[in-house]
Amino acid sequence: MTGWIAIAGLGPGREDLVTPEVNAALAQATDVIGYIPYVARVAPRAGLNLHPTDNRVEIDRALHALQLAASGARVVVVSSGDPGVFAMASAVFEAVENNPEYIQTDIRVLPGITAMLAAAAAAGAPLGHDFCAINLSDNLKPWAIVERRLRLAAQADFAMAFYNPRSKSRPHQFTECLNILREECGSDRLITFARAVSTPEQAINTVTLGDATPEMADMRTVVLVGNSATKYVGRYVYTPRSAL
Amino acid sequence: MTGWIAIAGLGPGREDLVTPEVNAALAQATDVIGYIPYVARVAPRAGLNLHPTDNRVEIDRALHALQLAASGARVVVVSSGDPGVFAMASAVFEAVENNPEYIQTDIRVLPGITAMLAAAAAAGAPLGHDFCAINLSDNLKPWAIVERRLRLAAQADFAMAFYNPRSKSRPHQFTECLNILREECGSDRLITFARAVSTPEQAINTVTLGDATPEMADMRTVVLVGNSATKYVGRYVYTPRSAL
Repeated sequence: MTGWIAIAGLGPGREDLVTPEVNAALAQATDVIGYIPYVARVAPRAGLNLHPTDNRVEIDRALHALQLAASGARVVVVSSGDPGVFAMASAVFEAVENNPEYIQTDIRVLPGITAMLAAAAAAGAPLGHDFCAINLSDNLKPWAIVERRLRLAAQADFAMAFYNPRSKSRPHQFTECLNILREECGSDRLITFARAVSTPEQAINTVTLGDATPEMADMRTVVLVGNSATKYVGRYVYTPRSAL
Repeated sequence: MTGWIAIAGLGPGREDLVTPEVNAALAQATDVIGYIPYVARVAPRAGLNLHPTDNRVEIDRALHALQLAASGARVVVVSSGDPGVFAMASAVFEAVENNPEYIQTDIRVLPGITAMLAAAAAAGAPLGHDFCAINLSDNLKPWAIVERRLRLAAQADFAMAFYNPRSKSRPHQFTECLNILREECGSDRLITFARAVSTPEQAINTVTLGDATPEMADMRTVVLVGNSATKYVGRYVYTPRSAL
């Protein structure tokens, strides 16, 4: 019996945003591994072992998946959104690198609808021109890198998407982020706070940088900042395809 | 009868990467509008009018969708990938802005799996840290903006995804792009050419910038450039979650 790992993206929350490819992998799985709320989205069935784990144990979780696959299990590692965007795919490859006995493991990455694109769709098309995605968490990088990247991204006139904008342990950093953006982009720039996209709690709030406050973001929010041309048309926010 | 527009992403090509949300919209549609090869992916049925159009007529296509919806049609505007990423969503909002009589149109954007994320999944996890997406076509922006954005993105140490890397009419520009990247990132940086991702013709080719040639990209290729930490593990290319 040959085991495998599929690192699967469950999308932002609603079931009709899960791809058939991901559902097919889940139907074949013997084991599902992931952060508690994501594993809770997988329907239990006979013969399927669910392994929910706490946050911030990504490498332990990845190693567990490799061990199970080596023993013949068909393992789906679930992430929300897309597994390759600030999620479990890189963690699994890091675990392989640190445990080369697993280098032959059959690993597939199954893409999903990532939060920024679901948020952009809900708001209109704010990422309709060149854009960047930045993880504002500094668990895995120094804040100085985030600051420098924010300034360069603003100078490049990228639209921007921020994941993990605000943590309980570091509430001041998102304040600093907004200050940097106001300095670089001016106070009229549009910013969209998209909370719990595609779920019943979805809330989309677009304001100017001048009116933005840190409290508009929480752990379930993805933040989108327009480029210099982003504007409203009716109730939609969009970024034109062209740049001057 | 109340018409509407759904701007839908068909994903990179394979049917099991189309979301159920998009298929539900197509099942309700009276009209499907889009570029010829994308409309060709929609199964014909009685009562469904297919309107395939040529490339580079996005605004005409968008206006046609608005006119049909105003007359009560249920219109799906199809894009490949995600409609908000270098695709039809911004074109529809531009058409609304230029034709304010359509401002009350019921417009929804239905996200899809965009090419860069399908390509990243096929290669491993090269976009596993902060990254940017740049449309290399200069149809809609001066090449000087592309050059400046490339340099700033490299200085920010973003991983990068390039859409429309190479056109027949401007083959020299992707050569210039590779030259800029070699200057800014060095010749050892990994670059992945992902062609026709998720289709039977899929080809994933990772080389160093030093070995990259413009001919490795064509109109069906999305190009991914790693950041300074991107590396191989086994046959996979990935970018670690952390930065120093």
